[in-house]
Amino acid sequence: MLRSIVAIALCAALCGVPPAPEPPATPEKDAPKPGAAAAAAAAANPLESYRAAVRAIVEEALKSGRALERVAQLCAIAPRRLSGSADAAAAVEWARRAMEEDGLENVRLEEITVPHWVRGTVESLVISAPAAHERTPLPILALGGSVGTPPEGIVAPVIEAKDFEALAALGERARGAIVFFNHPMDRAKLDPFDAYGDAVEYRWRGAMRAAAAGAVAVVVRSMTTALDDVPHTGSMGYDDDLPKIPACAVSTLGAERLATLLATGEKVVLALRLDCATLENEKSHNVVGELRGTTKPDEVVVIGGHLDAWDVGQGAHDDAAGCCHALEALRLLKSLGLRPKRTLRAVFFMNEENGLAGGRGYHERYMPEMGRHVLAIESDRGGFAPRGFTTDANPEAFAALKPIAALLAEFDAGRLDPGGGGADISPMKADGVVTMGFLPDWHRYFDLHHTHEDTIEKVNERELNLGAAVIAAMAYIVADLDAPLPRNEPKPK
Amino acid sequence: MLRSIVAIALCAALCGVPPAPEPPATPEKDAPKPGAAAAAAAAANPLESYRAAVRAIVEEALKSGRALERVAQLCAIAPRRLSGSADAAAAVEWARRAMEEDGLENVRLEEITVPHWVRGTVESLVISAPAAHERTPLPILALGGSVGTPPEGIVAPVIEAKDFEALAALGERARGAIVFFNHPMDRAKLDPFDAYGDAVEYRWRGAMRAAAAGAVAVVVRSMTTALDDVPHTGSMGYDDDLPKIPACAVSTLGAERLATLLATGEKVVLALRLDCATLENEKSHNVVGELRGTTKPDEVVVIGGHLDAWDVGQGAHDDAAGCCHALEALRLLKSLGLRPKRTLRAVFFMNEENGLAGGRGYHERYMPEMGRHVLAIESDRGGFAPRGFTTDANPEAFAALKPIAALLAEFDAGRLDPGGGGADISPMKADGVVTMGFLPDWHRYFDLHHTHEDTIEKVNERELNLGAAVIAAMAYIVADLDAPLPRNEPKPK
Repeated sequence: MLRSIVAIALCAALCGVPPAPEPPATPEKDAPKPGAAAAAAAAANPLESYRAAVRAIVEEALKSGRALERVAQLCAIAPRRLSGSADAAAAVEWARRAMEEDGLENVRLEEITVPHWVRGTVESLVISAPAAHERTPLPILALGGSVGTPPEGIVAPVIEAKDFEALAALGERARGAIVFFNHPMDRAKLDPFDAYGDAVEYRWRGAMRAAAAGAVAVVVRSMTTALDDVPHTGSMGYDDDLPKIPACAVSTLGAERLATLLATGEKVVLALRLDCATLENEKSHNVVGELRGTTKPDEVVVIGGHLDAWDVGQGAHDDAAGCCHALEALRLLKSLGLRPKRTLRAVFFMNEENGLAGGRGYHERYMPEMGRHVLAIESDRGGFAPRGFTTDANPEAFAALKPIAALLAEFDAGRLDPGGGGADISPMKADGVVTMGFLPDWHRYFDLHHTHEDTIEKVNERELNLGAAVIAAMAYIVADLDAPLPRNEPKPK
Repeated sequence: MLRSIVAIALCAALCGVPPAPEPPATPEKDAPKPGAAAAAAAAANPLESYRAAVRAIVEEALKSGRALERVAQLCAIAPRRLSGSADAAAAVEWARRAMEEDGLENVRLEEITVPHWVRGTVESLVISAPAAHERTPLPILALGGSVGTPPEGIVAPVIEAKDFEALAALGERARGAIVFFNHPMDRAKLDPFDAYGDAVEYRWRGAMRAAAAGAVAVVVRSMTTALDDVPHTGSMGYDDDLPKIPACAVSTLGAERLATLLATGEKVVLALRLDCATLENEKSHNVVGELRGTTKPDEVVVIGGHLDAWDVGQGAHDDAAGCCHALEALRLLKSLGLRPKRTLRAVFFMNEENGLAGGRGYHERYMPEMGRHVLAIESDRGGFAPRGFTTDANPEAFAALKPIAALLAEFDAGRLDPGGGGADISPMKADGVVTMGFLPDWHRYFDLHHTHEDTIEKVNERELNLGAAVIAAMAYIVADLDAPLPRNEPKPK
């Protein structure tokens, strides 16, 4: 029965003719129970003919989804796949093989040049003074891109600043010191990505600002609302006109201990040792595979995630989940015989974490085809239960997307919020491509993000498969609409 | 500013006068971004005057919530608090202390009589034949209430039945055998509680039906959609007119291995040993504390969870989370100065898991006051991110509750679905009390339910605190409405 419903939906979708009323894909007692308002909205949905297909996708994903198996493979084969590493190369090979196994078409590697930063083997921050606290270690990770310290380390007084204004107020006291940016993510915000957006500039700009003030190193409070001893790494920037000083992130509890000690008024001296380094650039690849469209194969909907990950944990949620969402979305559609008018293209971008070479490389390579990219979707907020999508779509495109979101509401995934698409697909905005970000439940992401804790055990199979289903449904319908989505105004960088 | 907004909201709520337009509790850029439809709905909400209070509750919960700390205490002090155990007694004492510490009023223990089943120390299921598989253990837990085996165990051929029809078809072949009910929870269902509802009767009735067919023991596939080696315990029933045969649950992977072996057609013999037993009944207690109402203190809104838990893991989600939701909901309201017209009563019920003595005892004790119970809310689906509530409310009460749910929509917790309230509060239905169940995200619950895995590490602080906030908001507004909720038709048992 499932297959016949799908066939009818497919036919309707291809022919543009509404299908005859059909029984729901699941028996009545199993069907979700929308309220009266939701039912009224559903009745008026101009894309109602796709509902059976959407339900079939979800049911198939929950019953037989393979996304978790794929995430587990990637996490086992290439856990620390930072750009330029041997694990990153292994991840590229895994991706090609997985796409081929799932029967994607035109599977290919597309070369790019990536930075190659290595963490090294020495990574410690220890209290040197006051004597009562001597040799107390604080849990840290070097920030990605940081220079190392001299082999003997940097030993210097530490000075705390909540923000850049506080740093400015310190004046000459920052000179020769280790600056400690203790800027917590705001726990009270409902959306932790908002809180991250506010706090992360201390990770990105901290070393630059501290160096400008004469500091010799920088310690940044980890980007999480959790209070624990798990440090969070991430990218940082340098200014070529300023000294490059070593930078690390300290766990939030470590930050609290340090702040408590500093609040006593005693002089606190820290010893920092890092042997991380930036090596020569390497060749690497984006990995691409397709489900070719039936009648408009040259028009493309991109579904992407990033293949690289930080060199701690396994990058299970960030972003093995996103890549496997894309892979599973295409596998689900293929297995249900749901092939849209336009081409669906899975893109596993390399180097999202520390350079964006993959996102930029894709954009440059496909520049002549940007006018035929009708939508780019990225999943890079983890493999949690789906809530919907964010998008930068113009009002006309937003209106066209809204009925698709409405079809996802019965799965608690009907949100369509104004917002960003994702880092890897952002270069395409320059050419007016509408971008969209998968929006999963957000509460657990920053417990794990860029840490040793981001491992396969934290991924729930049902949540991951349901995410893949929702992405599949969104991409399938957009790729199958009669008229392409209205394009955005080009946004030059 | 927070406090002034709360004061205005409280004043408006108490006086029934809409407050002057107020700035939102959070700056514009932090405020959720409802779509146009949501905004229109919000504008028409007759309970709009409560929005600022709801936002203040959520913000306070996310910023300074203490629910996780409370769950951690209970899990540490009384991890295996099955009714009648020493841990259950410790849990009662913890509950009284916690309510007193949080400043609840009229804190009291209310005596009930509970069963006392003990798991013992011997619990094994091993393949005896065929020889190639001899001594292979299968992961099990005895079902709660099961009798033990003789000390030497039960050694018998195993026979598989997917359901009771299949058992009937086995006829005399079940006699003298161990019956293996291999009825999977349906992975394809969006709501795993639906799948649980279908499958759990094999756990509850399996021993009765198998005994009626002449079997000597029963092995039930664990109640989860996950495929793993974690067995799930739970309650079971006996029929006094039939032999009481031992019953255990096998992990889903264990069930798959057993089924694969049976599919070869070879005779499979199992050896089961259990020394569980039912001891004498014990005295125990529900624990009750209140936030007394201002103008209608004799009318009551109950907020409940259950204090007992299975004797494996720590019962962190089932149901330390529910008790701590109730505790935290009242603490939040108290700390914000939000005291409604009616009394809010936190009830920690004892013996939900294997008897419901607490739920029945509460109902009997408060029989004369049932007419003044306007709503009973239970949280017993885990401490995951809130989605809303289910309720058995009559249409008029449902309509009165809908605007409250609408106020929760901006926190992704706006669902109000027809459905059950909860086991502990179900006896009150006999007197027409409207019941309501907290509805959190449901995908992870059956990975943990009744297992060694249900531990504190699986609880996310933000999700738990947000759940407490949503329950606080719902209970507060219902308790503060001018007119009490229209009562249900009494539903005799």
